[in-house]
Amino acid sequence: MAMYMGSSEEGSLAEVRYTDLNCDMGEGFGPYQMAPDAELLRHVTSANIACGFHAGDPRTMDLTVAIAVESGAAIGAHVSYPDLVGFGRRHMRVSAEELTTDVLYQVGALEAFCRRHGTTVRYLKAHGALYNDLADDEKLAAALAKAVLGYGGALPVLTLSGSRSVQVLEEAGVRVVKEAFADRAYTAGGRLVPRREAGSVLTDPQKVAERGRQLALGEPVEDRDGRPIFIEAGSICIHGDTPGAAVLAAALRGALHEAGVEVRAFSLTGIS
Amino acid sequence: MAMYMGSSEEGSLAEVRYTDLNCDMGEGFGPYQMAPDAELLRHVTSANIACGFHAGDPRTMDLTVAIAVESGAAIGAHVSYPDLVGFGRRHMRVSAEELTTDVLYQVGALEAFCRRHGTTVRYLKAHGALYNDLADDEKLAAALAKAVLGYGGALPVLTLSGSRSVQVLEEAGVRVVKEAFADRAYTAGGRLVPRREAGSVLTDPQKVAERGRQLALGEPVEDRDGRPIFIEAGSICIHGDTPGAAVLAAALRGALHEAGVEVRAFSLTGIS
Amino acid sequence: MAMYMGSSEEGSLAEVRYTDLNCDMGEGFGPYQMAPDAELLRHVTSANIACGFHAGDPRTMDLTVAIAVESGAAIGAHVSYPDLVGFGRRHMRVSAEELTTDVLYQVGALEAFCRRHGTTVRYLKAHGALYNDLADDEKLAAALAKAVLGYGGALPVLTLSGSRSVQVLEEAGVRVVKEAFADRAYTAGGRLVPRREAGSVLTDPQKVAERGRQLALGEPVEDRDGRPIFIEAGSICIHGDTPGAAVLAAALRGALHEAGVEVRAFSLTGIS
Amino acid sequence: MAMYMGSSEEGSLAEVRYTDLNCDMGEGFGPYQMAPDAELLRHVTSANIACGFHAGDPRTMDLTVAIAVESGAAIGAHVSYPDLVGFGRRHMRVSAEELTTDVLYQVGALEAFCRRHGTTVRYLKAHGALYNDLADDEKLAAALAKAVLGYGGALPVLTLSGSRSVQVLEEAGVRVVKEAFADRAYTAGGRLVPRREAGSVLTDPQKVAERGRQLALGEPVEDRDGRPIFIEAGSICIHGDTPGAAVLAAALRGALHEAGVEVRAFSLTGIS
Repeated sequence: MAMYMGSSEEGSLAEVRYTDLNCDMGEGFGPYQMAPDAELLRHVTSANIACGFHAGDPRTMDLTVAIAVESGAAIGAHVSYPDLVGFGRRHMRVSAEELTTDVLYQVGALEAFCRRHGTTVRYLKAHGALYNDLADDEKLAAALAKAVLGYGGALPVLTLSGSRSVQVLEEAGVRVVKEAFADRAYTAGGRLVPRREAGSVLTDPQKVAERGRQLALGEPVEDRDGRPIFIEAGSICIHGDTPGAAVLAAALRGALHEAGVEVRAFSLTGIS
Repeated sequence: MAMYMGSSEEGSLAEVRYTDLNCDMGEGFGPYQMAPDAELLRHVTSANIACGFHAGDPRTMDLTVAIAVESGAAIGAHVSYPDLVGFGRRHMRVSAEELTTDVLYQVGALEAFCRRHGTTVRYLKAHGALYNDLADDEKLAAALAKAVLGYGGALPVLTLSGSRSVQVLEEAGVRVVKEAFADRAYTAGGRLVPRREAGSVLTDPQKVAERGRQLALGEPVEDRDGRPIFIEAGSICIHGDTPGAAVLAAALRGALHEAGVEVRAFSLTGIS
Repeated sequence: MAMYMGSSEEGSLAEVRYTDLNCDMGEGFGPYQMAPDAELLRHVTSANIACGFHAGDPRTMDLTVAIAVESGAAIGAHVSYPDLVGFGRRHMRVSAEELTTDVLYQVGALEAFCRRHGTTVRYLKAHGALYNDLADDEKLAAALAKAVLGYGGALPVLTLSGSRSVQVLEEAGVRVVKEAFADRAYTAGGRLVPRREAGSVLTDPQKVAERGRQLALGEPVEDRDGRPIFIEAGSICIHGDTPGAAVLAAALRGALHEAGVEVRAFSLTGIS
Repeated sequence: MAMYMGSSEEGSLAEVRYTDLNCDMGEGFGPYQMAPDAELLRHVTSANIACGFHAGDPRTMDLTVAIAVESGAAIGAHVSYPDLVGFGRRHMRVSAEELTTDVLYQVGALEAFCRRHGTTVRYLKAHGALYNDLADDEKLAAALAKAVLGYGGALPVLTLSGSRSVQVLEEAGVRVVKEAFADRAYTAGGRLVPRREAGSVLTDPQKVAERGRQLALGEPVEDRDGRPIFIEAGSICIHGDTPGAAVLAAALRGALHEAGVEVRAFSLTGIS
């Protein structure tokens, strides 16, 4: 959730709410193509684009940047462990310096396609196992911060709301945007229920839309036991590889519109 | 060779000659390291750094950029076909769009390390089979130009002096710097004698130094049959993987000094 | 086409015709899966399984071998240039020794999965650019023969009917099975019309079935200009990645049945 | 240590002791070559050959098998996690089925080169992080056993003496050969002192030779605190990448000869 005080039409102060919707993109490789990216881009405002380490060869990256630019979405580097065959979903014990340099490599590669299409990398989000590992591993989070600062310092990082990484990154001087998931079940502690467990992924458009609305408005969501928990959300993620992802995204977008929540790229508004 | 008119100490106009020495760098991979890069950097002014396609993982790239910056050398992206096991020495029939995007990916990846170390990619040079293929293949040269222009347009390209690529790149609006080789034999037509032929690589420091001096001064060099040929040279290449490369580089540097030729990075002077 | 004299029910000698249908399989990679292999395996008798160089990671190979064994199909090693991102469709200039060892590596890797599932690699077929290059390049064909002989000598090779490779391989002592295509257009010279040209791939089930029947019976087929040409065929290929591949395969299988042509794996019958 | 009763020259029964020396081999990749394999092969009896996952492309594998065969050494598959850039030294959380199929792929690939050179893969040894992970992770050890049994069942596995994997593999029906290290320091618990700790690698030829002699004779060795520990050893490892590896191997071989210990490949004698 995000909000600021602006002037209403009548001249009085009014609360304007908005959120950001982000989605993984460009996760094809060579002859293989995955999600209906162009369709999803009609609904989301931030596109996390694979950079060649878990998916995404140069041509796929270029095409994905092109359609993201056309849709007006902000582009983020979706960085990963180097594991194409495992799609970046396997934990790897990399050194801090390896992580820093692997991240720099990927962000830079994506930047070249952004330059070609008249835009720039706006933020960074880790993928798969790296995303999960970063949440709790302070050394990894510090190594990521080193990459961001090495790159120039201004790149915000999307990271799991409520995780240890939020504090580590902020202390290192990195802007953090807390991410919540409209299509994933949460534990009582506010963590994602692992994908291998039943019910971990929500596929009912109505439930996904309702959860997204709650996250955007700062209302509590239900954990997997039905108890209310609060999840701070500067951006809401929809998974592109969930079956019917575009339908879910459209439903969520509709619910946000009805609730009076504007949807904008967090990295373009400068507020989180 | 390059020259310009400057004022001598006595106030009269004098001809000042200079050239650039370039060398391939950062061609290790993971646990493997190759040439004595730090030593070579004492002698050369332009460092062609491998970008992960024929050699050069992220950590190696970062370390190589760091020592290049320390030495004051200009950094160029040494781009290749995607062929680690073949070290980029095998011709591959890639499409124009594949080449354009492969080049953008590599330049961008290297740029990230340059940003970390307070510099920028100054030029581009193709590696191995791609270097040779570009010399004569107009479609490939046009695809390379597309990458350079997509990246922003200002990046000069080091390419084989006398080759068709010079014209194609220039017509496309790319700045070209013609490259000659101090440690390679030439055919009567001004092409490099292929590596597989005897005598293709010069290893005698005195001969390498003399050839480099001739190239820098615009004097003719001997082709493999002993006949004089003229090779225009905006930059002179020394191969880092030639045995005794650092000795050759030192000898050449000495000969240039004696001949009154300054050695400067072509990409930093803006003159070629 | 193949035939032999066998005894009919009445005790007299009769001509029994049969052919083999082969299809590429296991061309997924990591998270990506391609063709409906299990469905195709209901119709074909020889499964060309990718070995990790153009597609096919270890898990995909294992699963594909398992379903091929279940279907009763013979398993062939579908070997390629090392080019995952290009799906083995790009020509690469590899040395003879590189080709020999690349092929051995791939056949051996596939053999391990065959051992696990109680079978063995029965034959070898090159993929994509390597298939095309082998047809005419005698050095490559000789390098392939070296791999086959090094592996033990008994592995037949499926290769383009009418190509130079047939002779080179046979002279080297390799058993050759000539392959024809039910779903591809032919030039007057008996070569495949390149995929980039219109009409190169046949997608009408009736035409594919008719062409397959003609090939199996040794009748002439029409080249792209409608003129009859003869193509010897020890095995007929159906492409798994053609849209509606399983429908085409079923139609062809039906036409062969009606024409009294048995369909059996060439490598299991020992006759070609 | 291993021993059996044989007849002495005088006709009486005498105890004959022998051991096996194993060493990692073929750990180059493409243009990069590492250890002086040919020299080491004069001293060791078992060659652990890299299979392409941490090092070792097809050509390097073929050449290494060739020189191993020439030297009379038994050939083992040195299998790894898929991590070329990390040289297999980084822990990866692979699934049991991924490990089983990754191992089968590698063993099979190496087998092809063994067939070419008239031999066969004799045993299996995990590399780097996988070697360490297997020691204690029962699920991984069971997955490895599945690969061995899937391959045919007869392949012995070299694994860390005293580790949990010994029992898991044996219970699964796999023959285990316990491995000890002549050039590594041990903890009081009989585990290897991690490489990152000072004194973890022994480089003094005399100390390596003495430790190897003790291991071969079943005598206690000193742990890092100088206290005696017993390490059962069916094979003794010398690291090829230790500086001066060939000198160490020669010294050890000499010490064993003086102590009356024969050195033979465990996989060729059938005794462990």
